[in-house]
This record gives sequence, structure tokens and C-alpha cells, in this order.
Amino acid sequence: MLLRKLLFVCICSMTAIYALAQSNEPALMPYPERATWVAGKYRITDRLQASLVCDQKDDILSASANRVFQGINRKTGIYFRQAMLTPGKDIPGASLRIIARQKAEFTRGMDESYTLRVNAEGIQLDAANSIGAIRGLETLQQMLMQDAEGFYVPFADIVDKPRYSWRGLMIDVSRHFIPLDVLKRNIDAMATVKMNVLHLHLTDDEGFRIESKSMPQLHQKGSDGQYFTQEEMKGLIAYARLRGIMIVPEFDMPGHTRSWFAGYPEMASAPGPYTPGPRFTLSDKDTAINIAAIMSAPTPTIDPTREDVYKLIDKFLTEMATLFPSPYMHIGADENNGAAWRQNPKIKAFMEQKGMKDTHSLQAYFVSRLYTILRKNKKTMIGWEELYGPELAKDVTVQKWIPEGGFMKTAGKADAIAEGGNPVLISTGFYTDLFMPAYIHYNNPNLPDAVHPNLWGGEAAQWTEIADARNIETRIWPRAAAIAERLWSPASRKDPEDMYNRLFSVSRQLDEQGLQHTSAYESGVRRLAGNGDPSALRTLADVLTPLKGYKNLFSRFSQPARLANNRAPLVSLCDIIPVDSEIKRRFRNNVAAYLSSRDPAKAAEIRIQLRTWESNHARLMRDASLRHAASPIAKHSENLSKLSAAGLRAMDLLEKGSTMPEEEMKSLQLLFTEARKQSAETELDIVGEIESLVKQKLLPEPAQYPLF
Amino acid sequence: MLLRKLLFVCICSMTAIYALAQSNEPALMPYPERATWVAGKYRITDRLQASLVCDQKDDILSASANRVFQGINRKTGIYFRQAMLTPGKDIPGASLRIIARQKAEFTRGMDESYTLRVNAEGIQLDAANSIGAIRGLETLQQMLMQDAEGFYVPFADIVDKPRYSWRGLMIDVSRHFIPLDVLKRNIDAMATVKMNVLHLHLTDDEGFRIESKSMPQLHQKGSDGQYFTQEEMKGLIAYARLRGIMIVPEFDMPGHTRSWFAGYPEMASAPGPYTPGPRFTLSDKDTAINIAAIMSAPTPTIDPTREDVYKLIDKFLTEMATLFPSPYMHIGADENNGAAWRQNPKIKAFMEQKGMKDTHSLQAYFVSRLYTILRKNKKTMIGWEELYGPELAKDVTVQKWIPEGGFMKTAGKADAIAEGGNPVLISTGFYTDLFMPAYIHYNNPNLPDAVHPNLWGGEAAQWTEIADARNIETRIWPRAAAIAERLWSPASRKDPEDMYNRLFSVSRQLDEQGLQHTSAYESGVRRLAGNGDPSALRTLADVLTPLKGYKNLFSRFSQPARLANNRAPLVSLCDIIPVDSEIKRRFRNNVAAYLSSRDPAKAAEIRIQLRTWESNHARLMRDASLRHAASPIAKHSENLSKLSAAGLRAMDLLEKGSTMPEEEMKSLQLLFTEARKQSAETELDIVGEIESLVKQKLLPEPAQYPLF
Repeated sequence: MLLRKLLFVCICSMTAIYALAQSNEPALMPYPERATWVAGKYRITDRLQASLVCDQKDDILSASANRVFQGINRKTGIYFRQAMLTPGKDIPGASLRIIARQKAEFTRGMDESYTLRVNAEGIQLDAANSIGAIRGLETLQQMLMQDAEGFYVPFADIVDKPRYSWRGLMIDVSRHFIPLDVLKRNIDAMATVKMNVLHLHLTDDEGFRIESKSMPQLHQKGSDGQYFTQEEMKGLIAYARLRGIMIVPEFDMPGHTRSWFAGYPEMASAPGPYTPGPRFTLSDKDTAINIAAIMSAPTPTIDPTREDVYKLIDKFLTEMATLFPSPYMHIGADENNGAAWRQNPKIKAFMEQKGMKDTHSLQAYFVSRLYTILRKNKKTMIGWEELYGPELAKDVTVQKWIPEGGFMKTAGKADAIAEGGNPVLISTGFYTDLFMPAYIHYNNPNLPDAVHPNLWGGEAAQWTEIADARNIETRIWPRAAAIAERLWSPASRKDPEDMYNRLFSVSRQLDEQGLQHTSAYESGVRRLAGNGDPSALRTLADVLTPLKGYKNLFSRFSQPARLANNRAPLVSLCDIIPVDSEIKRRFRNNVAAYLSSRDPAKAAEIRIQLRTWESNHARLMRDASLRHAASPIAKHSENLSKLSAAGLRAMDLLEKGSTMPEEEMKSLQLLFTEARKQSAETELDIVGEIESLVKQKLLPEPAQYPLF
Repeated sequence: MLLRKLLFVCICSMTAIYALAQSNEPALMPYPERATWVAGKYRITDRLQASLVCDQKDDILSASANRVFQGINRKTGIYFRQAMLTPGKDIPGASLRIIARQKAEFTRGMDESYTLRVNAEGIQLDAANSIGAIRGLETLQQMLMQDAEGFYVPFADIVDKPRYSWRGLMIDVSRHFIPLDVLKRNIDAMATVKMNVLHLHLTDDEGFRIESKSMPQLHQKGSDGQYFTQEEMKGLIAYARLRGIMIVPEFDMPGHTRSWFAGYPEMASAPGPYTPGPRFTLSDKDTAINIAAIMSAPTPTIDPTREDVYKLIDKFLTEMATLFPSPYMHIGADENNGAAWRQNPKIKAFMEQKGMKDTHSLQAYFVSRLYTILRKNKKTMIGWEELYGPELAKDVTVQKWIPEGGFMKTAGKADAIAEGGNPVLISTGFYTDLFMPAYIHYNNPNLPDAVHPNLWGGEAAQWTEIADARNIETRIWPRAAAIAERLWSPASRKDPEDMYNRLFSVSRQLDEQGLQHTSAYESGVRRLAGNGDPSALRTLADVLTPLKGYKNLFSRFSQPARLANNRAPLVSLCDIIPVDSEIKRRFRNNVAAYLSSRDPAKAAEIRIQLRTWESNHARLMRDASLRHAASPIAKHSENLSKLSAAGLRAMDLLEKGSTMPEEEMKSLQLLFTEARKQSAETELDIVGEIESLVKQKLLPEPAQYPLF
């Protein structure tokens, strides 16, 4: 009978969660600058007629309008009588009018504004140019809602434009190769949340991922055969262009270049031979990681003193300047500790001869030589913040990534750099590979409140030491949508709960559109469950979160074989679970409401959830496959059960007006501490909420988490 | 309390299902010719050492062995110390030895046999050549099992070879374009179940899907821009080759050629202009479909009387003969009713002049001209069975597809054609687009019991009038695995329950490998549920099956707009649900066991399931989004609830030793009839099982289903 009660609750709680998720306002993300909602619904039927009032040759707007039209078609299942939207064709009486007053390609800083008005007459989207119109089309698609009568768009008056001009996503395709279809799905998702720059980190120690026709040994010897041909890259650039997205390539130099040296060892500051692979490797004998030693060890680095090296770089970058139409080119310049240079007597002699007092000066020299090559090719240079210094040309954009007060010296505050004349991009606080919850990115303190014209915006960044083609979508999305909103919407919009309410709806939208972030998680749980019932494992996984910060990466060093190179399978729970869980957010909201109002309905929901968790450990341990799958996180499962029992007990006491005996509270305090410990690079993510129940006050979530 | 009881059961039933799915024998599919299982387990650890004893240049075996090695690595999460398997390197003491005595490319009829022995010493896979070895590797991968201690391969002695040499899958990439990534995932799945031919139906009325450099208007005007470039096709051929799979192209002529005429209207037997599109279109005014009228109406057809037409065909096929290395080329030749020819006076005059008494003779003339072109290019011709006749050259392979006693005349029995000297392929009974359950394909009566040397094998066939990139994986898989087994395993292996037990395990394996057949279904249910809880919709969807046969396609004609062309969204439940449901099979097995043994444990499981179904309708109707999503199949939901109540009542009576009053039985009979009616091209798939409960005897499943 107990079991019956416990399980009953499980389904009820699901129903409750979904009921609460429904709202009368559409889940727009990024939220517009101004939106006025008016009572009324514009119904979508098969007789919807749409006009595309624009230049007849506007292929960008035409492609996006038809893509969104098909999206509405797929979402509603309504087969529109109108076959497709023809650019330049104004259909009399059309109830959807999309107007772009000028044909335009995407360029940074352009007008991306639009207005969108929905009333009884229909829908009118108006923009100064094609790109503004496609941003508005994404808003329109998110406004599609469903009630018992069918689909509609709520009446509204929207005036919208972005806060920042550069809203990027960086994907490292080198550490683990990320294939074209995955990148295309990411581009689709970026378009949905109005991001406009895909920054591809194309080369690193582990792999050279772009075909070079002028220096074919770069990709042939510098990769395991996994690279983009130039034809493929042209296709990807065209795909992004039609969505108002620019692809900016990064060729990281002078460090992070081991893969270059596989084909061209003569470019290195230490003799070869080289093969592509991580900067540092650990052997079976290493049992702990010495970060300081790793950060100061010499790593493969380009020799910046030789003219023939610049000839090769010039040849390669000139080839790439033609392949990539973007006016920007990223040259990396990060994490060069100079150790390899200091070990080479010829390089030391060069420095002495030129009067350079440190390796930063030598790097500045190297950067200035690349600057000349880029200028010749009419490209604007971008680099990570290590390239910043007083000698840096003012038209070089500085991308910040190093956390303040952390393990490396930053280039300074974004404001100061912008004030000093260099454009700035912010990635500090936007690293999705650090497993931070969305609210941390959303309220990123590294983004100044005031917008200086030199502060162009920022980029979410996904490095791939521990991400691959299978799990990268779950890693980036939906959290990158919160970053996209931070970069688009007014600074005043910053309530995390409001953001989360919309975030999970956008996540469902991305799932519908074909993004694999949810499917990969579900399929991963099924894989781990073997022939066992995946739902028990799923109940636990839904309240786990990956260990945050660099701790996650470093924790794996305790089993050196797992990180010895990028072949290690990324298949554990830590690798497949999302960072933010809808179940956890909902539970937290319920606890908050219950503690402030003692609402019996909330109490019932909370009890239902707690009973499900309490009984889940037994379910998980009953089956051999599940028991094996759960063995690395069995401690979490057991703690979840204990915590849930404690939560139920606390509610009983609270409702009886009793307080918890001191001894009991003491032992629970030990449980909270114990339950917060990581296991297999995962953490139990509802400890604070249950502790809140026990202590009868909602404990705040951390404003930040340690990286180490 | 009632609700509590009902829901309790839901989770228990899941657990029961998964518990039953576990077995001590691995789920091999196709099942080997001979397998002996010995007590004992070979444990997989990170110290597994593997030798690839083969030619050093054996890239096929090397690629497959490393792919399977990585598959084991992903499945187990074990990071092997051995980085990769190097061909030709025999590692002393290796516990996994893979031996291929000869390097080989795949060719039809080659030796694909292997032996696999697992004992305490390790695993030895032995094959005459590379292709046999990669077939054995797939068996090895399926033998990986899991218990509470971890992963192992059970001790075994396997001797295996295929029954047929041609085990194909045909995919129509014309009606709906099927992109490269989807085809690659299909190739991976084919490799898993030892299929060896991917037959691509590249051209049809709706689209010309291959780039022609000699006649670029074919793909440029004959498609909507969705086609394979020759570079892409070369990549796909190479991808398939590494998996022992040959790609056979089909260029369907002389009918099904509307897309050809968009660029080359002069090839048609009636004047243009033409645009790509379905052979026949219906207008809003058509309310019913007249099959006979459609089948006899003139459709776009090549003019076979003109020499300049053969020059163009020669130019195109000669170009394709170089692009596709396969020695086979498929020229279609299906469904030409001759009506277009009879309407053209010049063609009629040509026939009279040549003394041809019917259009079949003219088609035979056309085929003989193509035969000459193919011979010149050293290609063996394949065609659909309509090309068969006494005049057909004996080295032309005849692919049967027309059901006996159906709507069209067949070319005769497979035996007779083979006996007459022509090679034969069977697709009759293997059409996955007809929504038949796997057991129908498995026991396909069109495949003769005796294997004549001219009977090469067969092909699963997936046409895409109502399948697209999103749902095609759910359409083909896992059912094609049952067809693969039929074509590989001995004829004596034909128990459907045994097949189903393994089929659902293979389905999980394909899911793990990245095939989207399950994820697409789940994501589709989430899409339909909107912001509502998808689990209620899922419970219903799990016991629905698409309407079977051509009825499904034709039912859509009742809403002509839905089929007017291939832009209609394929997003209804009918489009996303799989044909076979594991829940249904398990329920059927439980009912069978209960009726024969009165086992109380089975009775409990059945009751649990029935209560879940009984209460599901109320769950579904409670939420506005779900109510809207379920509206087209609300009748099924209601009937499922009523049937479940009836099943529970019948069990109560049975256990009390009472019989059902006649009146009640009569009204139930009406319910059974009512519940069997289709709704929105779906059928409720557990009516027979509940009727079995009520009538206290297991009703057999149909040996076949009507196509119309």
C-alpha cells in the first residue's frame, strides 16, 4: 500500500508540473525590448495568406520566411493552401504581411530592429531590412500558442531591437570533431534565439579541422581524417548566411598548434616529430593533477622568430581569407606561457637582440606580424584577451574569457579596454562547458551595465575536451538561449525565475525543430539502463547536475586513462545529463510558495514529489542492469531517498506546529553536507531545496560557483 | 483512491515489462545459422587486447573493427588501454582475435561466412575474407551483455553464413528528399543487421535527386534544390563500402519521369512544360478517390520512339555508370500503363510500323535499348517486374513487388521466373511503407521455401509519398531488421514471438548507435503535447498503429489538400508512431500465458496494464493542449478506456467461475467492432487481445492484412 501511494504521486506530480508550465503569454526568448499584450487571439487556419513585401531577389528573407512558414505548418499540422511565400509578391487581403524595406546581408552593427503587430485584422511584421525581418519572424514563431480550439497568435504590439550587435556562440570543433549536421542544428537553434555569430575554433592541438589546398599536410597529417572540406565549409557558410548568421573562423596561434606541426614540424619552437593530441598527457602513474605544473610546462608553440614561418602562415591565412567571407578573423593567441620559447636558445637570442624583456613582448611581435597579414587580406583581427597590451592596434577586437581573481591574469575590465579604444567581446561568464546553471550566465557580472560603443557584445563558448558530437547539444542548449537573451534584451530584464519559465518552453521549441539536446539525454539514459526500465534511472538523473567548473575536467584526471586523449567515451551520466532540470526548478518554486503561504495544494505537490524520490532508490536497486548503471552514483540515489524522507518529516512537523529536535537537526546537517559531495562528476541538485524545507526558509542559490 | 490504484499500476507494469525483457541469451538478429551456448562469461575490461589478423591494407576491416571497438567502448563506458586496432598487427596474448584470411571488397554472392568462438581464453572471430569478418563483428557487438558485475560476452560457438546473397533496403529519396545524414544512419543500421545493398530510388516525378554534370538541367530544374551532388554521393558510396554495403542507383524510366521533363520536355511523349510534382493531383473538389481512374490515366512518360531521346539517356546513364561503382543499375520500368503513348499519334504510328500489338511490346523495345546502353557500360540491369516478358534478356534481374491477386498483374511466381533463367529479387511482402507489423514481413509468403540459385534475395522497400526525413527512420526500423533476418537466417527460424523478443532489443541497440527511430517518435509526441504532459498522450500512442496498406495513403485523399503535393506536413500521430509496439507484444504474451495457465502473477500484470489504460482517457481530456492534440483520435482513447474496463470485468468473471451474460457479450461485440475502426489513419492495436480475454481464448493475429 505504501508503494502504491508513492508511485501514485509520481504521475500526479508530472501532471502538476505541466499544468503550471502553461501560461497565457507566449514564451518569448530573447524577450523583446517592448511588448504590449492585448486581449484577443488571431486564429491560424489553412486559409492563412502571407505576403512577403520585399526585394524580389531577397533570398535571405525568402528562405527564412518559408522556413518559419514550414515550422508553423509542422507545429500546427495545418496544411496551408498557399504553397509558399514568394518574395516581392504582395497578395491583396493577406492577413500575414512581412515587410522588409531594404534587402540586406548581415553585418555587425546593422539595424536588426523590427515591429510586430497582431490584431483582429491579422499580423504585420515590419523591418528596415531583411535581417530585422528574420529576427521578427523568429518572434512570430514563438508566439504560436495552442488552446482547446487550436492554434493562435495572441494580439500584441511589439517593438524590438538588440542591446548588443555581436551575439555569438563559439564551438570548438578541434578537441572533438563536431560534424556538419550537428553544426547545422546549432545554427538553427541560434537563429531561433536571434544569435548572429558562429565562431568556429577550427584548429587546436588535437586536430586541424579545415582543408587547406595550399598546405594540405595541415589537415591531412593534423587530423584523424575528420575535417571540413572547403566545399563543406562553403555550404555551412551559406546555410548560416540564410539565417542571418556570420561564421567567424579561428586559427589559434602561436600556442595550441600541435596539430599544425604534424605536417609542418619546422614551424615549431622545439624539434619534432609531432602528432595531433592534447597539450599535456598523463600516464597511468599520475594519480593527482598539479595544475600549476601543467600551466607552466612548455607546450607546442610556433617559432615566432623565423621569416619562413610567417611565409607559411601568410599562405594559409590568405587562403582562408578567401574561403571565409566574414570581415573578421580570430587568431587565438591564448594560453601561451612562453615556456617553449624560453627553452629555445635561438629564440632567447632573438629576444635579446630585439630588446624584448619577456615572452609577452615576443607574442606581441608575433601578433603584429599576423596583424599585417590580416590587414593585407582586409580582415579585422580578433584574439583572446592574452593578446591585449598597450602595443596592440586599436582595431583589434579583444575577447575576454579569464575570470577575475582566478588562475590567470586578465587583460583588465571590459569597460577600461573599450574606453582605451579596442572593441571588446565578453566570454567570461558565458562558458557553457563549465556546467553552470543558466541563471549564472543570465546574470553574468562580467557584462557591464552601461553599453559602451566599443563593447560589441559577447559569445557563449563551448570547448570540447569533454564534449563530443553526441552530447554537445545538451551541453550548449537550452542554456545558450539565456545568454542570447542577456545579449539581446534590455539590461533591466533579469529575473531568473521569469527566465527559467520561458527557457524550458524554448527548450521544447528547439526539440520540435530537431535539436538533439533532449533526445540525446533520453537516449543516453536508455543506453545506460540496458534492458532495464529507464524511468527509474531517469527520475534520479533528472535531479543530478554535472560537477561545475574546471573541477569536472580535473576530477577525471584522477583516472588518467579517461583523459589521456580525446578517444575516451563520454557516456557516463555526467556526460549526458543537462545542467538545469525543469523538475528541480518546479520543486524549488513549490517549496518557495509553500514556505511563504503554507498553501495545501503546494504541500500536496511537494509530498508527491518527495515520495517518488524516496522510493526511487529501491526501484533502482531492484534490477541488475540498473544497479550496475547506477553504481557510480548509488550514493546520490541513497541520499535522495534519505533527503526526501527528511523533507516529508519536516513537513509533518511544520504542519503540526512542532519543531525538529536538535539532535535530529544535527544529524540532518551531516546528511546535507554528505549529500552535497560529488560522485562520478555529478552532484545532487535539490539538496538546498530540501534543506530549505527542513529549515523553514528558502535558502538562496549561490551567486557564483567556484571554478576549481 | 481508485485513481491511486490505477496509477500505481502504471509504473509496476513498466518494471514488469523490462524484467521480462531480460534473458540470458543475447538478442542476435539476424540469428546465426548455428549457435551453441555454453555456460560461462568472458568479461570485458579495460585491459582487452585485440589483434586484427588481416592484410595491412584492409581498410574495410580496419574501419569496421575500430567502429565496433568504439561501439563496445561507448556501450560499456570502458576506456580501453589499447588505442585502436591496427590491421595486420598480431598482438601476442591478445584475447580478441579477428582474422580475415583474404582482403576483399563486397560483391554479390561472395563468401560472407564467419565463425565466432568465445571461451575462457577469449574471443576468436575467423572469416575467409574481410566482409565475412565484418559480418561476424556485428554478431560480436550484439553479444555484449550486462549483469550486476558489468559487461561480458557469453561463451559460445557460432558458425554462420547467409541464406541469400542480396539483402537490400530500397529508399525512395525522390518523393521526399532524404538527406545524407539520415541515409548514413540507415547504412549504420543496415550494417548492424548484415544487410548488404542500399538501393536508392533517385529519380521520380516529384524530384530528380542526383547532380548530372552532363545534363545539369535534370537536377536544377527537376528538383527544388534538394539533390545529392556527385561529391556527396561519392562520400556516401565510400561510407557504405566501409560497412560492406553496395549502393545500387535507380533511375526510373519510362514512367515516373515528370521531373526529367522539367529540364528536358522534348523527352516526353506529350508536350510540356513540366514541373516536378506528383503523377496525379487532386483538387479541393475531389471528395473520393477513384483508383481505377487514376491507374489508367495518362502520366508523364518518356517518348520511346525517338533516337534523340536515347542519345540523352545514353549520355546520362554513361555518366552515372562512372559515378556509381556498383556493377548493377536499376532502370525502374514500373507502373507505365501506356496511356500517354496511346494518346500520341506519332507513337501509335511507330507501334503500327514496327508491328507492336500493345504498349508492353513498346516498353520491351524501350527496355532493350536501355539494355544495350547498360551493356556498353558493363552494368547488369535490374528492373521492377513490369519489365518481365519472354523477350527479356536472361541476365536482367527482375524485382518483384506486385502482390498476388491484387490490383495489377504480376510477372508470375518467383520460382518460375528464376527457373526461366532470370535472377529474381523479392520485394513483394517487404514494403515497409505499407505499415504491416514485423511478423507479416517475417513470414512473407512471397519468399519461396527452396532457394533457387537465380533467387538472389530481396529488399525491404520504403517509398516516401508519406514519409520524410523526420519520420523515415521510425518507418523503416526496427521492422527492416526482421526482413534482414528473413534473408539471412535459415528458413526454419520463423517463430514470430521469438523474433519479437529479439527485435525490441535490436531496436534499443539501434537507438544507442544514434538511429532516430525512437527519438523521433518521442520528440513527435512531445511536439503534439505542446506544454501538456506528453506521458498521457504517449500511453495512448503506444497502443496505436498506423492504418495498414494503401488505405493509409488513400484515406488522406479524403482531404485532398493533404496530398496535393509533398509539402504536406507529416506530423500527425499516424506519421510518428511505430507500427509495432513493445507494450502490445508484452500484453499479448501475458494474455496468452494467463489464458493457458491462470497464473496469478500474469493476472496481476494484466490488471495493472488495463487500469492504466482505463484511466488514461480522463488524464488526456483534463488538459487543453492534450485534448486538442488527441482530438483526432479521441475515439480510440475512449474505446481504450471502455475495452480495458471490459477486460477487467471479464477477468473478474473468469476468476469467479462465472460467464458473461449474453446481453453484455453482445454489446461488447459492438464495442470490438467499433474499436477496430480507423480514425485519423490510426488503429487501436490491442482490440484482439482484450477480445481474447473476454472470449477466454487467444485469437490469432491475421496472417495478412488487406492492402485496400
